[in-house]
Amino acid sequence: MFVANQHPSSRVRRPFDLETFLATRTAAVNQALDHFLPSAATQPATIHRAMRYSLFAGGKRIRPALCLAAAAACGGDEANALPLACAVECIHTYSLIHDDLPAMDNDDYRRGKLTNHKVFGEGIALLAGDALLTQAFEIAARCQGWPRYSHQQIILELARAAGSLQLIAGQVADLEGEGKKISVPQLRYIHERKTSALLCCSVRLGGMSADCLPSQLQRLTDFGYHVGLAFQVIDDILDVTQSSEKLGKTAGKDTQARKATYPSIVGLEKSRRIAGQLTQRAFDSLKGFKGKAVALEALAEFLLRRDR
Amino acid sequence: MFVANQHPSSRVRRPFDLETFLATRTAAVNQALDHFLPSAATQPATIHRAMRYSLFAGGKRIRPALCLAAAAACGGDEANALPLACAVECIHTYSLIHDDLPAMDNDDYRRGKLTNHKVFGEGIALLAGDALLTQAFEIAARCQGWPRYSHQQIILELARAAGSLQLIAGQVADLEGEGKKISVPQLRYIHERKTSALLCCSVRLGGMSADCLPSQLQRLTDFGYHVGLAFQVIDDILDVTQSSEKLGKTAGKDTQARKATYPSIVGLEKSRRIAGQLTQRAFDSLKGFKGKAVALEALAEFLLRRDR
Repeated sequence: MFVANQHPSSRVRRPFDLETFLATRTAAVNQALDHFLPSAATQPATIHRAMRYSLFAGGKRIRPALCLAAAAACGGDEANALPLACAVECIHTYSLIHDDLPAMDNDDYRRGKLTNHKVFGEGIALLAGDALLTQAFEIAARCQGWPRYSHQQIILELARAAGSLQLIAGQVADLEGEGKKISVPQLRYIHERKTSALLCCSVRLGGMSADCLPSQLQRLTDFGYHVGLAFQVIDDILDVTQSSEKLGKTAGKDTQARKATYPSIVGLEKSRRIAGQLTQRAFDSLKGFKGKAVALEALAEFLLRRDR
Repeated sequence: MFVANQHPSSRVRRPFDLETFLATRTAAVNQALDHFLPSAATQPATIHRAMRYSLFAGGKRIRPALCLAAAAACGGDEANALPLACAVECIHTYSLIHDDLPAMDNDDYRRGKLTNHKVFGEGIALLAGDALLTQAFEIAARCQGWPRYSHQQIILELARAAGSLQLIAGQVADLEGEGKKISVPQLRYIHERKTSALLCCSVRLGGMSADCLPSQLQRLTDFGYHVGLAFQVIDDILDVTQSSEKLGKTAGKDTQARKATYPSIVGLEKSRRIAGQLTQRAFDSLKGFKGKAVALEALAEFLLRRDR
């Protein structure tokens, strides 16, 4: 069994320069997003400035990186996955903007910067989120297309991951769970939807852009599911162990909002062990890629070990 | 020139039973929406109840009716347009839910019922709007497809009409225009985006579902554009001339929010004349359909003469 406090080098068998991978892919994604979005001067300028403010606020581009890495694992050209990586990031950013609104989590800071509504006001923040969600579908629809998967399948993939049975279901359950005593299965229900759904969608879209086989798509689904769950357990842990300064957002929010988290239900130590086990499951699902999934492996490792 | 206070019968040359058309199409659209949306019992139930609350709050289904009528004008089967009519209605409903939020227009009533956030709270209303926008793309992606137009073109059409250069641009300009002195061209900029964009999209999608020719699509675009502008001028007029009871929403909101409207800039009488002229332009663009656009004609007439 994989234990979370093992040294990374014991897990990643092949040397892989994740730092360079992340830096180059972030640059490529930023450039593509800049290309897809109306310029900050396009009328009405306020909305485009607001969209860009949150989109270029220094996000780690985890979902785009997973999307591109999945394309590479399936032997595809990352360039074909790039628009989909951007679409997923637009959806992620929209969900953060809306999540930070006073009607939801009421956060003033995100990634060390003022949240969208703190800068542009609630009305524009609401509309900027709406616009980014819509932009995601426009970007996906503008893609050139792929032999094995149709635009129809790609758009359905995005819409389902972002819809009322997945991402939004997670937000709702999260909102309704505040202050209530909830069980580990209920917490997992929230995490599956709030976090795994879009991470899973990211790697699946990457695979689909590389015309992956159905068996590869299934492996990517398993990988995304487990990495997503691990990601959220780590997020819960960091919320109680790290400072606001380190996180770039208000730490301790979960406790303050009386939100159930893994640490609050099973304790810190067991939470760490669970995150390690979930990451191990993610690694296991990559075995079929025969060494081509190095970037995905390194990303899973990185997400487990991160300290913010 | 067509004058607004002429009797309807002088305009619609062929007898057309609009009441029956609207009743049957509303029933068909409601049934299809019920089919496409997760049931009210689907978990998390709150979000699906909230989505359905606003979607089935007695809306007039103008956009779906225009979409179906456009399909008929192009000789198509309305059944092929039905999912697109539903997608457009989901987008319209999402925009109303978000527009009614305290951060935007802060309305308590819509169609004579409490607004979404008054019933479900702001957080759920925000998410219900998000979910309906996402649902629109899922519905469009689930369509069977059409010979001449691809899913890619259909999704792009929807995304652009709802995006930051159209529908959302209109909301932003509307929000930013409050309390400011604005000119007729500026007001038209707002109306083109806030209202015409989605009406235009509705008829274009109807035509596309009927595999319309590019020339027909152009005529539908002209029609939708002018009907949309007329619709908004009439809306402005009704806001000052009708009671809240009649409108089912708070009357006089525009004046209260110090929003520029046609009546406030050019006066009531000239506003009525402008609405008539715009409707005439809409009629003119239907000439090429050689009598097959009777439902579209009757709808344009109805929208001009409505009293709520």
